Amino acid sequence: MKTIARITVLILAVVLVAGVSYAQFAKTEDAIKYRKSVMVLIVTHFKRMGAVVQGKADYDKQAFAANAEVVKMMATLPWEASLAPGSDKGDTTLSPDVFSKEDDFRKIAATFEAETAKLAATAMDGDFDAIKAQFGVVAQSCKACHKPFRK
Amino acid sequence: MKTIARITVLILAVVLVAGVSYAQFAKTEDAIKYRKSVMVLIVTHFKRMGAVVQGKADYDKQAFAANAEVVKMMATLPWEASLAPGSDKGDTTLSPDVFSKEDDFRKIAATFEAETAKLAATAMDGDFDAIKAQFGVVAQSCKACHKPFRK
Repeated sequence: MKTIARITVLILAVVLVAGVSYAQFAKTEDAIKYRKSVMVLIVTHFKRMGAVVQGKADYDKQAFAANAEVVKMMATLPWEASLAPGSDKGDTTLSPDVFSKEDDFRKIAATFEAETAKLAATAMDGDFDAIKAQFGVVAQSCKACHKPFRK
Repeated sequence: MKTIARITVLILAVVLVAGVSYAQFAKTEDAIKYRKSVMVLIVTHFKRMGAVVQGKADYDKQAFAANAEVVKMMATLPWEASLAPGSDKGDTTLSPDVFSKEDDFRKIAATFEAETAKLAATAMDGDFDAIKAQFGVVAQSCKACHKPFRK
């Protein structure tokens, strides 16, 4: 009986933890739609910064910092939705490897969060050389996740 | 010649102002996709708060404040994309009235921004009665825009 009670507690604990992480999305389609929306915003605002970094658009400190701030916040959002069970199927480019290599995925995600936060802080300072350098670091951290975890 | 010069300057000025506002989106489809993504995020995080306000989910101050913070930032983003010329056509529910009643639209948009910012501040304070009240105000300001400007 004691063993059964322990197993029950263990199962409940696992369900509760998973509940905190995933229950936010009622359907896998919702998780896919959500993380895609996050990516649309990241790409849009990252490209706006890219145009400035590449000299195709004028540098406006405030506008650049606003773009960096959006990317910084968005960078914190897509992970939970990306780990929604079964959400590698359907209208998505998510690799099933996120599930078998969750630790790697979370580590890369954390790096992206840290680097985008650093870009936002750098953008606030307004040192354009430092901004360009950090923009490059963020671009690398996009690739670092897309390469292993995007189909 | 002076008149032509003046007209040219005027046209250039209009093009430049429009450029600042709309040139961010190369195609109207991009503007539609972008503002829809913003709406997906607003709806997702607003619903998470709604579940708490309605007693269907537990109140967690930090989680609630994080949701409010996302909605606050997202509330600043969709207007420019919503005013992209011609973007009332295509895969969208945007009413063409945003163009004929742009002042009204911008006023309602500004109210939504202000009320979501107030919700984020209230959420940070953690007074649940005040949060519930302000959540209701934000819900009203969603409707205040959807009613006249959503097909």
